[in-house]
Amino acid sequence: MHNDTIAAIATPPGVGGVGIIRVSGSDAFEVVLPLLKRPGSSTALPSSHKLTYGQIIDPQSSEVLDEVLVAFMHAPHTYTREHVVEIQGHGGPLVLQRILRAVLARGARLANPGEFTMRAFLNGRLDLAQAEAVMDLIESETEAGQRLAMQQLRGRLSDQVQQARHATLSVIARIEASIDFPEDDIPTPQAEELNPLIDEALRQVELLLAGSDQGRLYRQGLRTAIIGRPNVGKSSLLNAFLRTERAIVTAIAGTTRDTVEEAVNLRGIPLHLIDTAGITPTEDPVEAIGVQRSRAAAESADVMLLVFDSSEALTEQDRLVSTEAQAMGFGVPSSTLSSDEQVATHQRPVLLVLNKSDQEQRIDRAELEQLWPHATFISTSTFSDAGLQQLEDALADVVLAGRMLHSESVLVTSTRHQEALRRTMENLRAAGRSLEQRVPLDFVSIDLRTAYDALGEVTGETASDDLLDKIFSEFCIGK
Amino acid sequence: MHNDTIAAIATPPGVGGVGIIRVSGSDAFEVVLPLLKRPGSSTALPSSHKLTYGQIIDPQSSEVLDEVLVAFMHAPHTYTREHVVEIQGHGGPLVLQRILRAVLARGARLANPGEFTMRAFLNGRLDLAQAEAVMDLIESETEAGQRLAMQQLRGRLSDQVQQARHATLSVIARIEASIDFPEDDIPTPQAEELNPLIDEALRQVELLLAGSDQGRLYRQGLRTAIIGRPNVGKSSLLNAFLRTERAIVTAIAGTTRDTVEEAVNLRGIPLHLIDTAGITPTEDPVEAIGVQRSRAAAESADVMLLVFDSSEALTEQDRLVSTEAQAMGFGVPSSTLSSDEQVATHQRPVLLVLNKSDQEQRIDRAELEQLWPHATFISTSTFSDAGLQQLEDALADVVLAGRMLHSESVLVTSTRHQEALRRTMENLRAAGRSLEQRVPLDFVSIDLRTAYDALGEVTGETASDDLLDKIFSEFCIGK
Repeated sequence: MHNDTIAAIATPPGVGGVGIIRVSGSDAFEVVLPLLKRPGSSTALPSSHKLTYGQIIDPQSSEVLDEVLVAFMHAPHTYTREHVVEIQGHGGPLVLQRILRAVLARGARLANPGEFTMRAFLNGRLDLAQAEAVMDLIESETEAGQRLAMQQLRGRLSDQVQQARHATLSVIARIEASIDFPEDDIPTPQAEELNPLIDEALRQVELLLAGSDQGRLYRQGLRTAIIGRPNVGKSSLLNAFLRTERAIVTAIAGTTRDTVEEAVNLRGIPLHLIDTAGITPTEDPVEAIGVQRSRAAAESADVMLLVFDSSEALTEQDRLVSTEAQAMGFGVPSSTLSSDEQVATHQRPVLLVLNKSDQEQRIDRAELEQLWPHATFISTSTFSDAGLQQLEDALADVVLAGRMLHSESVLVTSTRHQEALRRTMENLRAAGRSLEQRVPLDFVSIDLRTAYDALGEVTGETASDDLLDKIFSEFCIGK
Repeated sequence: MHNDTIAAIATPPGVGGVGIIRVSGSDAFEVVLPLLKRPGSSTALPSSHKLTYGQIIDPQSSEVLDEVLVAFMHAPHTYTREHVVEIQGHGGPLVLQRILRAVLARGARLANPGEFTMRAFLNGRLDLAQAEAVMDLIESETEAGQRLAMQQLRGRLSDQVQQARHATLSVIARIEASIDFPEDDIPTPQAEELNPLIDEALRQVELLLAGSDQGRLYRQGLRTAIIGRPNVGKSSLLNAFLRTERAIVTAIAGTTRDTVEEAVNLRGIPLHLIDTAGITPTEDPVEAIGVQRSRAAAESADVMLLVFDSSEALTEQDRLVSTEAQAMGFGVPSSTLSSDEQVATHQRPVLLVLNKSDQEQRIDRAELEQLWPHATFISTSTFSDAGLQQLEDALADVVLAGRMLHSESVLVTSTRHQEALRRTMENLRAAGRSLEQRVPLDFVSIDLRTAYDALGEVTGETASDDLLDKIFSEFCIGK
């Protein structure tokens, strides 16, 4: 099934100057060539990789579908290492769809999401970590995220994983040689000899894991919910962050019915700010949907900005929202907990924003500090922009906790890799302990095999078909 | 200024597998080549039009920005007839922007909207009507619209305009020869001799004008506003047309605050359906914004679907909305008026939709027919889908009035062309009348010159710089 000819639109959907249809597989040339009419009616295959002008003709109606540039690219010097044809047409959705339909009518199959990259992986052009980096690169929202994806695409992460894998394999080889060929008088390897090799692999894996929380942050970003009762200035705060007018801001309570999400770049980390409807008891069923969505946004957030109107006394609604936020597990002032512990305890950081600092202050600060004994308070005015820089700094403190990204850093950015490396670490440690306790070597070997296979999941040597399907199904179509 | 090197992202914005940066101008090769690192460190220019693998390196930081395919294309065999470089990177917005920034840092200038196509026009690769067809093709929403754009791009419209232009020129030449060189004894041409030539040009122009209202419809589509008091089922009607759940539909009056616009394909014509908030007197300032937007949508619509809830008696609000719609000029049941007349009299068609036909009918049909004496009434149920096909048929009748599009039709689709052809027609007719009335030939010649120049505006020979700027500024960036 991995040799049939697939086709898809490879450029983003929408209107643009140019759009690309990509065809890959053993019959790619035969599929496209009869659709192409070139000046002088040449029917010969143009030389490989050369962009050639022509028209795409609908074989049914003989209608000219588009004027195009086409490149026929011979295997194996292609993205998929198969024969690839690239058709560059005008970048209109309908034009590209009609060309694609003509290609499919000639016997190509519509590609699944990520299927071109999956073939690149299956044909050995990329390993799995590199293949995953392709999507990270496309979806990166900050330069830091892009740089990490590029390092991964270029194989830097794979190199380090392979080093740990080779070290592990060398231990396995020594153990298994002594077990499998006892008659060859191979001396049983001693813990003193094996331990340094395991430690070497362990050191590599621990190093990768050490940066992985930070790496995931740069890739996935941080969901930051702006929460509060109606009309405390949540949308104005989002706008102040965006320095634009993305959310509709009016002086009327309840204007934001749906949640509005925008990404800003917080020192290289994509901060997904989610503006929400005010959380309030309401009789209005439409407003109630908004309130419900706000609660869902808060539930799924990594960080909460809890906003109060400091020009008014605390209201019952303010207290209600605070209680709800604490019930959701928000309450840690800054990331003194590692993200693992945070996940385990559902404790997530909150920043308390006292908005409308430009007006006379009527809020009872003492009561608020009693409600939130360990919280960080920041006074802001979205009218005068006062306090916004402090809020950004406080957010960065919470998020980065002083860690900086170096331009040559190789960081694990994926939960999947992190999880596989954690299993590797556990099994390498178990192997080390077993050696110390003089456990029979074949048991040690089982732990080491498990560690070796877990490392192979990162680069794809030991990935199951199910895992591959899952990974590539999250790609976009045409990649 | 038209030889400097320009660059832009040419693919649609957003996330996709592949994105293209296009660079055009005399220095295009020099701009890109130093950014490109190829396997084996080759620095020679690859052969023209050949897609070549490499990395784009940021000259400042030496960072690898992306892995790319690059084609260096020698003038004049390019879109702009200048040197063109095409860089194919990963289709992520940030990746493409960073490559573009590196290209601009090397001295290229960011291209203006449509500047690549403007250069193709200025360098003689396309005439103006063909250049305009490029955008039409990209933005076409139906196959019929795309077919018309493709005919125009291939020069079919230009050919017919040029025939009329040559015919006009031949008349001008005969008249001017006799005026300019009287000493050569060139006999003064007679009306009997010139009239058939003018008629020939006129026939061509009139033929083009005859299909132009229809052509514009296929290109621009039809704005169809769904209007009514709150909660008569306007959003449900839009959804029934879309057969999806694009608009949020609830049983609560006032759910649609903003207007929702969706295009459907009505027998080849893009029908832009605009769902609106119910028009109602309201104290709620946010709802008032919605009502105001509904009125604006109605004002700008070509056709109105006026929706009533037939399970209830007519309300004061229904009468109010009817009065407003009539004040806006809606009232013609079907397009018995040509669109010219419609524009002049502001009379636009309305269809009266009696929704909720599945429930007990309580609406006073007689009163409604008194309110709308000439209107077409269609009973629908968005619950059972009853009457939806009739509504579609009625809309098609109103819009197409029985006209069908043939696949080889060449239709004028642009208001600009229509207007220029209309001036051509008027001046050709004036010239014909003057000939009959034995007006001195130099006066006849002035009318013919005006007609000749008006035809040249379509194909661009006599287009002013201002006109060109205006036309190309409506293109997308990168085209």
